[in-house]
Amino acid sequence: MKNFEYRNGTKIIFGRGMENQVGSESARYAKKVLLHHSGSSSVRSGLIDRVKESLKNAGVDWVELTGVLPNPRLSLVKEGIEIARKENCGLILAVGGGSVIDSAKAIAVGAVNDGDLWDFFEKKRTTDKALPIGTIVTIPAAGSESSTSCVITNEDGPWKRGMTLQCNRPAFSILNPELTYSIPPYHTACGIADMMAHIMERYFTREPNVELTDELCEGTLRTIIRNARKIFSGGENNYDARAEIMWAGAIAHNGFLDTGRTGDWASHALDHELSALFDIAHGAGLAVIFPAWMRYNLKVCKSCKEDSLQTLSRFARFAAKVWGVDGAFYDLEQAALEGIQRLENFFCSIGMPVKLSQTNIDLTRIPEMAKRVVYFGPIGNFRKLDEKDAEAIYRLAAE
Amino acid sequence: MKNFEYRNGTKIIFGRGMENQVGSESARYAKKVLLHHSGSSSVRSGLIDRVKESLKNAGVDWVELTGVLPNPRLSLVKEGIEIARKENCGLILAVGGGSVIDSAKAIAVGAVNDGDLWDFFEKKRTTDKALPIGTIVTIPAAGSESSTSCVITNEDGPWKRGMTLQCNRPAFSILNPELTYSIPPYHTACGIADMMAHIMERYFTREPNVELTDELCEGTLRTIIRNARKIFSGGENNYDARAEIMWAGAIAHNGFLDTGRTGDWASHALDHELSALFDIAHGAGLAVIFPAWMRYNLKVCKSCKEDSLQTLSRFARFAAKVWGVDGAFYDLEQAALEGIQRLENFFCSIGMPVKLSQTNIDLTRIPEMAKRVVYFGPIGNFRKLDEKDAEAIYRLAAE
Repeated sequence: MKNFEYRNGTKIIFGRGMENQVGSESARYAKKVLLHHSGSSSVRSGLIDRVKESLKNAGVDWVELTGVLPNPRLSLVKEGIEIARKENCGLILAVGGGSVIDSAKAIAVGAVNDGDLWDFFEKKRTTDKALPIGTIVTIPAAGSESSTSCVITNEDGPWKRGMTLQCNRPAFSILNPELTYSIPPYHTACGIADMMAHIMERYFTREPNVELTDELCEGTLRTIIRNARKIFSGGENNYDARAEIMWAGAIAHNGFLDTGRTGDWASHALDHELSALFDIAHGAGLAVIFPAWMRYNLKVCKSCKEDSLQTLSRFARFAAKVWGVDGAFYDLEQAALEGIQRLENFFCSIGMPVKLSQTNIDLTRIPEMAKRVVYFGPIGNFRKLDEKDAEAIYRLAAE
Repeated sequence: MKNFEYRNGTKIIFGRGMENQVGSESARYAKKVLLHHSGSSSVRSGLIDRVKESLKNAGVDWVELTGVLPNPRLSLVKEGIEIARKENCGLILAVGGGSVIDSAKAIAVGAVNDGDLWDFFEKKRTTDKALPIGTIVTIPAAGSESSTSCVITNEDGPWKRGMTLQCNRPAFSILNPELTYSIPPYHTACGIADMMAHIMERYFTREPNVELTDELCEGTLRTIIRNARKIFSGGENNYDARAEIMWAGAIAHNGFLDTGRTGDWASHALDHELSALFDIAHGAGLAVIFPAWMRYNLKVCKSCKEDSLQTLSRFARFAAKVWGVDGAFYDLEQAALEGIQRLENFFCSIGMPVKLSQTNIDLTRIPEMAKRVVYFGPIGNFRKLDEKDAEAIYRLAAE
């Protein structure tokens, strides 16, 4: 187990009707908030009206910025920074999914840090200053509601890059599973693939002796899988299934499941290129990339005995503990492959693509994506991947 | 799943050599600290000298209060409050196990709240004000390093009572598994029983649909059991086993494992009477009480069909998931009993008592303990227990 520091002060307010506390919570931080949302579904559902009512009742004023898109854009973030500064907002209040929350986080950092915001995404500098952030989560997926991370697309490239800072953690996040009943099945599935990927990125580590976090990762994955099946067999309005998924989505990415270990994160990087160039939903991209990343690892580990043992045993454990593959392990590779197959079958069963051919990706651009993904150097920690590896994984995903 | 709020801002600083950061961490909060410890083992090991060195290097002054005993006493807490006020301490720094940390928490509350401190323990009033607390944990057990709770013995009764407040959460806690190598086996075992009890108190709930927290509880218990076996078969200085136990001990009681559910806590109350009257170690008392509490539940649930189904299925699940009892459940009661037996066998294997006859308890005082334990009304949530129930459990523990 590695040395680590862990602190997560986000106040989670979870359950039925909890969004009505948004006014009183916001009032702890600010007299005026920047209310940030997509301007579409949360308006239609009446949620934004209820948020405004709650703010009004608590004596909190607001200024609104709408129009956040999936893969949120830097241009809108810059607009938000202008408004937050001009209107002297004391809190950025995000109502929506990961895109809205990530956009709010970037605004919160930009509002109190001069200079080029993109520097933080290119890791040229760092900061511990940001406006406080509040969230009402409407799509359980990104886990951004209590995470340190934030991913923004800079249209100039386009580049999709992350900014990981302690000050990105929201001050409070309100999670009401009822708000997720109306999410279209495709987006529910994208969210599930996203949160599973967050756990799997952490799970695939070379760090030995991380038993507790292994157990917590496996238990959270099993819970997601079981409850996803409930939702996708007629349980759209099953409060408890939605609640398990929603809480699991937050835990998947709040840093708790990777204390003492180093995660991989190559699949996220590989997906970022898909979504930067083709605007594919993050979860759908991960459902395609992750199994291909696993198959590639199984293939290339064979040239080294120690690598082979580490890779096969971890992948076989994943198969046994998460997917119930027979744990006798007479043949580690067989068990590992069966685990990957069950992961793909599960993604298919909830309507996710598992091959690039099921998406709008132009396969002729694979070499370009492979070149872009290693722009800052090799990616991944379980296995360091260069341009050639990245291209091979994209090609496996295309097969 | 019940609605819930969860916030835990304690900064965990975990790993080898981390105690040397105590000076710089303390300096964030105070120019002068009250350094609180037992005055025995942490002095002998040289830890206190290193702490002082680190404080000195960071320009932090200190005043010392030693002499904390197991089942920490209100009289010493009052002394600490006097000193903290007189010396204008800005942080209470606890170096030790749960007793020292609990004593520090009570001092931190008392230092900034006028009136009778015991009122908070008798739940006559509450507060959100306390001095910040820092800890260096030397015994993984109580989980007090990131919990909201604090248990103190008032010698006037004697009464042993808890005070649960958000402001009891330490600002930072330093956990170095190496510091636990030298704990005597009996105290290591007491700590393990204590952290297991913290999880089991949460696990035994009537709240349906708490799958994620069930999984997390079971995974944490399995990790504790496996690593305890490593430590007790020659692995006293096994860093990774000590690290798993230490991190599990913090997680067991930081509130994360009972989001959305109501725990039981009758066994803790029953043990408090043992330790108030006979000064028995908390973990040892719990090792005796918990199996008896389980057997009593199995016995009395039979009079009601619904109670019987709920009790048997939860106890059988505990047996299957935590202890590997065959999950076929042809006979739920048989499975449940086998789980209790394995829990007792485990406690025996690490040198814990499982019967009152193995302790210094005077059995003739059972009626008195039963009367005292329900002083504030019935105890427990999985099953409400009155004086008669409490007496029956003490008697089962004596058999």
